[in-house]
Amino acid sequence: MAEVPQEAASSQTEDNSKTASTSQTATNSLLTDFKFTRLLNTTSQGRRIILLGTISSQPALLIAERGAFSTDPRHLTSLPKLLSHIQNLGDNDIYRWYLASSTPTKTLDNPTPPDLKLNLIYPCTEKHIQKHSFQQVRYVVETPEIYSKYVRPYMRLCREEGRLNWVFNILEGRKEQENVLFRSAESDPQDDFLLLPDLNWDRQTESSLHLLALVSRRDIWSVRDLKKSSVPWLRHLRSTLATTVAGMYPDVEVDMLKFYVHYQPTYYHFHIHIVHVNLDATGTQAIGKALGLDHVISQLEHMEGGDEEAGMQMVELGYTIGEASELWTRIYLPLKEGREPMVSGDSEPTGSG
Amino acid sequence: MAEVPQEAASSQTEDNSKTASTSQTATNSLLTDFKFTRLLNTTSQGRRIILLGTISSQPALLIAERGAFSTDPRHLTSLPKLLSHIQNLGDNDIYRWYLASSTPTKTLDNPTPPDLKLNLIYPCTEKHIQKHSFQQVRYVVETPEIYSKYVRPYMRLCREEGRLNWVFNILEGRKEQENVLFRSAESDPQDDFLLLPDLNWDRQTESSLHLLALVSRRDIWSVRDLKKSSVPWLRHLRSTLATTVAGMYPDVEVDMLKFYVHYQPTYYHFHIHIVHVNLDATGTQAIGKALGLDHVISQLEHMEGGDEEAGMQMVELGYTIGEASELWTRIYLPLKEGREPMVSGDSEPTGSG
Repeated sequence: MAEVPQEAASSQTEDNSKTASTSQTATNSLLTDFKFTRLLNTTSQGRRIILLGTISSQPALLIAERGAFSTDPRHLTSLPKLLSHIQNLGDNDIYRWYLASSTPTKTLDNPTPPDLKLNLIYPCTEKHIQKHSFQQVRYVVETPEIYSKYVRPYMRLCREEGRLNWVFNILEGRKEQENVLFRSAESDPQDDFLLLPDLNWDRQTESSLHLLALVSRRDIWSVRDLKKSSVPWLRHLRSTLATTVAGMYPDVEVDMLKFYVHYQPTYYHFHIHIVHVNLDATGTQAIGKALGLDHVISQLEHMEGGDEEAGMQMVELGYTIGEASELWTRIYLPLKEGREPMVSGDSEPTGSG
Repeated sequence: MAEVPQEAASSQTEDNSKTASTSQTATNSLLTDFKFTRLLNTTSQGRRIILLGTISSQPALLIAERGAFSTDPRHLTSLPKLLSHIQNLGDNDIYRWYLASSTPTKTLDNPTPPDLKLNLIYPCTEKHIQKHSFQQVRYVVETPEIYSKYVRPYMRLCREEGRLNWVFNILEGRKEQENVLFRSAESDPQDDFLLLPDLNWDRQTESSLHLLALVSRRDIWSVRDLKKSSVPWLRHLRSTLATTVAGMYPDVEVDMLKFYVHYQPTYYHFHIHIVHVNLDATGTQAIGKALGLDHVISQLEHMEGGDEEAGMQMVELGYTIGEASELWTRIYLPLKEGREPMVSGDSEPTGSG
C-alpha cells in the first residue's frame, strides 16, 4: 500500500517467523552492539521506548516494547517464585502493592530496574474473583424506544437507590473536599461545576491529566437529557472548563485538552471527562463508551425540531456493556432473547441499599 | 466515593510509597508463597495478567503488570548489552524483529519466556528519526467554514497528488489481491465494498479482529461527504458488513463488533473500521480520532434541513493532529497565529509526486 511504510507492513511478528536471511549470530550481535545515544520517545505508558544509537558508527533505531506474559501454566506457576528485588509500595487492609523484577538475576554491577508492577489481594473473596475474571462484552444499540421504556426507568432506580449520595455529598461540601481541585463560583448557579481528579491520574503529571467536571445542577442525568436548548449552556461550560484547567496547570494549553462524556456512564449525574491529548488513549476514551463533547454539542445544534423537544433522547446510541452488567442482564439479554425486560415495573424498586 | 472500590482508589502507586506497615520480609514472602491455581484474565494486550491462587491455603489474587522502562540513561545504555535469548523473527532490508529477555539469566531449569519485543532499524535515516520522535499533538475544532475553505481543498490536493492510487489499484483488482479478505457482489454496485485486514491485526486472533471496509464508490472522500440522504445506504452497508464479518469468523457474533470511521482519516477515500469489542482500545478508537458509525448515522437522520442539503459538512468536528502534520502546519497553526492558511489557492497544486 502506497501510504504504508514497509516497516509497519512487516511488523506483524506472527507473520514474520520466517527464517532469518542472515546468520543468527551475526544478526543477534547487531542488537548487543547497539550503542545508546539518546531516548527519542516513550509510548504505551512508558512500556515502549525508542532509542537512537549507533552500530559500527552508523545511526540505528532500537524500539523496545514490553512483551505479553506467557500464559503457559508452568511459567505462571514459577513466576511468583522467580520474583526478586521486591519493593513493597504500600498496604491497605487486604490490598498490597509492589514493584519487582521478574527474574532472580544478581548482576550487582548492572542491577536491572523492576520490570513488574504487582498487586496482591489476600485473602480475596468471591466478589474479587468475579470482578477480575474475564467478562464478555457486547455492543448494543440503544434506540429512543429502548431508552424511554427500559433504560430511563433503570436510571431512575439507580438514583433512587441512593447510588448518587457520594456525588451530592461532594457537591454540597460535606465529604471528600480534599479531592475537589476547583469549585466554580459562576454568576448563574446553573453554570457551576467542580473538578475532581480521575482515579487513574496521579494528580501530578500534566501530560497524563485526567479530570472529571461534575456539574452542580441535578436535572441532567446523562447525555440523554441534553436538548437543543442546552447548547448555549454547554458551550459556556466547555469554554469555562478549558480556560479553568489551562489556568490551573501551567504547561497545559487549551488546545491540549479533549472533552468527552461516557454513555453509559458509571453514575447518572452529568459529568464531563477532561484529558490531556498526550495521555495514552485506553478504553475510557474509546468509541462505544465515550462521546466527544464537541460532537454532541454540534449534533444538538443542527437537530431537527424545536429547542425544547429536540434532544439526545431522539437518537440511537451504541455502546459496549459487560455480560455481568445490570444493563445486559436486565434489559439487553431479555431483548435479545425475545423476553420482556424487567427493570422496575412494579412500584417497589428492587433494593434500596 | 461510594461506587469506587477501595482497591482502585489506592492503586495509584505514586501515591502509595508510604512505608509498609508490616515488615518487609513478611510481606515479600507472601508474594513468593503464592501458589498458582488458574489464570483468571489477561488484559492490556497480554501485558497484565490476573492469577488466582492460594497463600497458606487461603485464596489470593495476584495481578502482575509489565512496568514502564526506566529512562535512566545508565539503564538505557546497558539495556542492549543485557539482552539474552535473542530470537530473530525476521528481516526485511534495514528492518529486523526480535524477541528477547531483558536480563542475562541462565536458570536452565526455569527458562523465562522472552519479555521484550524488539525492532531494529539499521542503518536508519533522518526520516525514521523524525517519525519516531516525540511530536506534540493538538486538539482542533474544524468548523464548517474551516472545512470548506481550507480542509476540503487540502483533501482535493491529496487526492490529486495520486495518494489514492493504491486504493484504486486494490479496488480494481490490480494489486494486493492477497490482502483482500472479502469482495462483495451486491445487486447495486453502489453498495459494494471490500474487506482488508488492518495492519495491526495478525489476521488470526478473532478476539482482536480489526478490519477495514473500503467502499467501491469513489464520491465519498470522508465522513464530511455523508448527507441525510446517505442514511439508507449507510444502514444497508452497516448491516451487510456485520453479517458478512460474523459469517467469515465463526466465533464472532454481530454484537461483538464495533464500527467507526476516522476523522481525519489517513487517506481520503471513505472506509470503515470494524473491530472486535475485546480488542484493547488504543488511540485508533479514541475520541478526537474516531467517530462511532452508529452515532453518525443517527445524527444524520435527525439533522435539520432537506435530505440533499443536510449533512456532515454542516457540523463542527474536533480532532487531534500532530504538530508535524500538514493539517497543522498548513492550516491550524496559521489560523492560531492569525495568518491566512495556504493550501492550494493558486491553480497549481503544490506538487504532484
